[in-house]
Amino acid sequence: MHTRTKWTDLAVEAREGEGRVETLEGGIERTEVIIRGEDAAKRFGRPPGRYVTLSCPQTMTIELATRQALSRALADALTELLPWNAKTVLVTGLGNRSVTPDALGPRTCERVLVTRHMSGCLPADVAGRMASVCAASPGVLGVTGVETAEVLRGMVEHVKPDAVIAVDALAARDSQRICSTIQAADTGITPGSGVGNHQKALTRETLGVPVIAVGVPMVVYASTIARDAMAFFGRESGASPADEEKLAACVERVVSERLGDLIVTPREVDALVERMAGILAEGINMALHPGLSMEEIAQLTAQ
Amino acid sequence: MHTRTKWTDLAVEAREGEGRVETLEGGIERTEVIIRGEDAAKRFGRPPGRYVTLSCPQTMTIELATRQALSRALADALTELLPWNAKTVLVTGLGNRSVTPDALGPRTCERVLVTRHMSGCLPADVAGRMASVCAASPGVLGVTGVETAEVLRGMVEHVKPDAVIAVDALAARDSQRICSTIQAADTGITPGSGVGNHQKALTRETLGVPVIAVGVPMVVYASTIARDAMAFFGRESGASPADEEKLAACVERVVSERLGDLIVTPREVDALVERMAGILAEGINMALHPGLSMEEIAQLTAQ
Amino acid sequence: MHTRTKWTDLAVEAREGEGRVETLEGGIERTEVIIRGEDAAKRFGRPPGRYVTLSCPQTMTIELATRQALSRALADALTELLPWNAKTVLVTGLGNRSVTPDALGPRTCERVLVTRHMSGCLPADVAGRMASVCAASPGVLGVTGVETAEVLRGMVEHVKPDAVIAVDALAARDSQRICSTIQAADTGITPGSGVGNHQKALTRETLGVPVIAVGVPMVVYASTIARDAMAFFGRESGASPADEEKLAACVERVVSERLGDLIVTPREVDALVERMAGILAEGINMALHPGLSMEEIAQLTAQ
Amino acid sequence: MHTRTKWTDLAVEAREGEGRVETLEGGIERTEVIIRGEDAAKRFGRPPGRYVTLSCPQTMTIELATRQALSRALADALTELLPWNAKTVLVTGLGNRSVTPDALGPRTCERVLVTRHMSGCLPADVAGRMASVCAASPGVLGVTGVETAEVLRGMVEHVKPDAVIAVDALAARDSQRICSTIQAADTGITPGSGVGNHQKALTRETLGVPVIAVGVPMVVYASTIARDAMAFFGRESGASPADEEKLAACVERVVSERLGDLIVTPREVDALVERMAGILAEGINMALHPGLSMEEIAQLTAQ
Repeated sequence: MHTRTKWTDLAVEAREGEGRVETLEGGIERTEVIIRGEDAAKRFGRPPGRYVTLSCPQTMTIELATRQALSRALADALTELLPWNAKTVLVTGLGNRSVTPDALGPRTCERVLVTRHMSGCLPADVAGRMASVCAASPGVLGVTGVETAEVLRGMVEHVKPDAVIAVDALAARDSQRICSTIQAADTGITPGSGVGNHQKALTRETLGVPVIAVGVPMVVYASTIARDAMAFFGRESGASPADEEKLAACVERVVSERLGDLIVTPREVDALVERMAGILAEGINMALHPGLSMEEIAQLTAQ
Repeated sequence: MHTRTKWTDLAVEAREGEGRVETLEGGIERTEVIIRGEDAAKRFGRPPGRYVTLSCPQTMTIELATRQALSRALADALTELLPWNAKTVLVTGLGNRSVTPDALGPRTCERVLVTRHMSGCLPADVAGRMASVCAASPGVLGVTGVETAEVLRGMVEHVKPDAVIAVDALAARDSQRICSTIQAADTGITPGSGVGNHQKALTRETLGVPVIAVGVPMVVYASTIARDAMAFFGRESGASPADEEKLAACVERVVSERLGDLIVTPREVDALVERMAGILAEGINMALHPGLSMEEIAQLTAQ
Repeated sequence: MHTRTKWTDLAVEAREGEGRVETLEGGIERTEVIIRGEDAAKRFGRPPGRYVTLSCPQTMTIELATRQALSRALADALTELLPWNAKTVLVTGLGNRSVTPDALGPRTCERVLVTRHMSGCLPADVAGRMASVCAASPGVLGVTGVETAEVLRGMVEHVKPDAVIAVDALAARDSQRICSTIQAADTGITPGSGVGNHQKALTRETLGVPVIAVGVPMVVYASTIARDAMAFFGRESGASPADEEKLAACVERVVSERLGDLIVTPREVDALVERMAGILAEGINMALHPGLSMEEIAQLTAQ
Repeated sequence: MHTRTKWTDLAVEAREGEGRVETLEGGIERTEVIIRGEDAAKRFGRPPGRYVTLSCPQTMTIELATRQALSRALADALTELLPWNAKTVLVTGLGNRSVTPDALGPRTCERVLVTRHMSGCLPADVAGRMASVCAASPGVLGVTGVETAEVLRGMVEHVKPDAVIAVDALAARDSQRICSTIQAADTGITPGSGVGNHQKALTRETLGVPVIAVGVPMVVYASTIARDAMAFFGRESGASPADEEKLAACVERVVSERLGDLIVTPREVDALVERMAGILAEGINMALHPGLSMEEIAQLTAQ
């Protein structure tokens, strides 16, 4: 889980109300935000680039048709964000597979249709319709002792992919975003300098190839919820500036004394991680192997 | 996870500042609260009985010596709470093994030293030092379609134990209690009538034998944290009665709109559940097989 | 894993070449064997009753269409074997969930569409099309200290189902049967007296209601493979009776010295257990809820 | 699972009866085999180098004291095999974490005390006593699409360790070796050219630093058991050369028709993998951090 700003990993939350919005099949809302230039980047606390957000209010009790529409929409977004002529792609699942909400990346990776090692073994009619895909979950610094960026740089040098897709669990500001939003961006992943995280960035600059980031919010920090609740109260109650100062001080005390590193998550997060990993992998598989039908992909990756 | 009152499963939180407190080896704080009679029960929102609470501030980064002191202290508490002449004991792990923080009961059960089926096969010198123990995790209503109490009644009728030990994950009010407090009580488990939980009680009345409840807080409800933060603000700011009404209404809106069934939990909850299950099982194994040394138990249950 | 005879749990292996055989859609071979009366039972080393066997050579790399045909065929077999007017059914997953090839029963159970606790909460149009189903995996004697039959008797007394479906991993004689055969029988499960297994039978006699057994071979005992290889050699080489005696003695030495409790299993058994559990659960869900379409079931049980 | 020869991964099995043998505390048998020069290497079907084998008949029901003696003996062997002045070590767990008997490497890796990322954060008194250790499980070619050697070369280039320790599950010839033997060798891992395995070698030649291989047999190929049983019969029965030819042909038929890629493994392999991973990690941790006591290591890696 990378936290790019104090409050949220979602561009759509940072730019509430902006971006081009359209409604797709299955009630999915697609928002596209483009941040151009360093000034805008500073203003919104995230790197310049193109962000596609797919939202779907009922993800937790999602119907099969909506689920398919969602992975279809992700496939479309990835097709736009990937270099048009990418032949070899490295998919990487960030995060710690032993921490449930952080396991989204590794779990997605396990379901990606990997083909790089089969070139030469596939029947000609299938081979022509598949990209060369490899997938790896490098683990987290605290478990491996190696920076994720170091591991990936090594892999990129040997595999020489045309692009990297990096899948990661995100933190949102609004708990209703949990498991109901997918964000894809051509910006790579740049851990914020403010969060004491010394992970190096995974971007075109550091890896040498375009990096498409795919993420889903799995948690909200407890401190965010407390801060939001207080802000809401301040607005609702028409608090005076003096009150607001008291409020803010009070929030900081509660947060630092009681909430520490706690996360807020749905009780069913174990099942939700599996479901979202399935949807992300479907979208990635469709984007990378456009010559295969949804059924062929389902069969080739069936567990 | 049973929630016996709206706010907390811990007697020690309901009776803040009361009870007989002593400090044990390893810095463990032991509090004993006795609730006598129906009046006291009503006042404190929990059934009459004897509650032993063991607290240990640094459980998350616990040292080996403290860990052993904690399981030793739990063994002592159980020895006091169990009928003195219990020969056959059924240990049951409540909760859903597929929901990480709720899996504490089943995970503990897996580590209990089960002996009931070996009577007659054990060497005489060992057999005399071991109780007849069986262990079962009946699963949760939503997964099995059967009330936990129904399954356990059936087992108790066939096994005819002298007592039941029921292990469950709890919800606390204060997030600092998570994984740092063990509660053992001779009251059984009585789901509060107010929480919309139709589970039947697991008590001497319903099962026909004494039921010792053992629990550890694994979560705080997000709604509790929001309510607490607000109450704290009310107190600190010297809010007027009119303000307090506004506050309360405001809290209810935030809670119902945003927090739903969300839980607050440490990021490392997967590892913490395993650790606490180990400590609880050690305590239970020592209490039920007092003739065995800690080393003998470690060897017999080694994974 | 119950072993009803020394060599095989499969009626179709005991009666090689007999039974009514037909080929279904997807290349599935359906064999029905009926064992009538005690004489026949003794001759074939298994209890009287009706055995339906579904075989599908390519289960390991099964196509989606074949998979659906297989679960459809299982649903049809169960519909014939279950009492025609069964309204409430208890599905039970036998075996040890911590031993991969033995986890088939519990894993199937987890995917059964459980409805018993929702009666009264379902929309009228759906409720009329669903049976009352509950599901439980009682664990194994060595882990719980309680006989499976004891636990189930307790549950049956409280739940009062019209039938029990018991799912279990089997041992086959022929390794090619592993994961490629499903056996359903109306005989319940009667552990053979010869295998030193003191588990009590799960049958209409012991539980009081019809018990349908559903099993898939997940292992072959290593000793079986050695014995088979030797017998094969004896036949092929036209060994003399004196040679055969030597052979038999030799086999027994190899088996007892080297093979002990070893099992033979495919390397991919972890993935195969998940796949077969999915197919069995689909078949059971379709048989028990004939009013629901395959899509509705998929959605209600989607993970 | 790498198979370096058709029959066994264990040098001690290839050179039955040779090597320097001594008996250590806890009844552990330590055998050291040195293969010098290319001629000897060809004769024994494995690369030149120093092989230390630790055997312990009762590993499956191992006592605590024996377990500690075993990890102590492994630590001693590693200390001898590692370059004496190694300061930075990369531990890598080979194999597929989703295939139970093949997960030994990854499971061991998870328990290695990783320190490389903490240099600078550790208290001075501790820092001086710990090596710089990192750990990674690169997954298998079929899952990632990338050769293990490619991933490791990338990591070695960035991490620049003084040595690599590669942990892997082995195949044995004799089923009694399963989980009862640990082999450590300074040869690296060289997949045999005969087994159709295109994995590149992990050796000083390919990685540029010394590679210490640590392995434990977790399986025997079913084909090995059948071949052995037949050979045994041939010897015992005093078969004539003509008979032996028939025998051999017969064996090949049984093996190819029935045994394919089947493995022979104990039923409790899930639990045994966890136990062996614990012992290997203890040995590795003691060898790499000789300044820490067994208790300090236990505490720092406690789960």
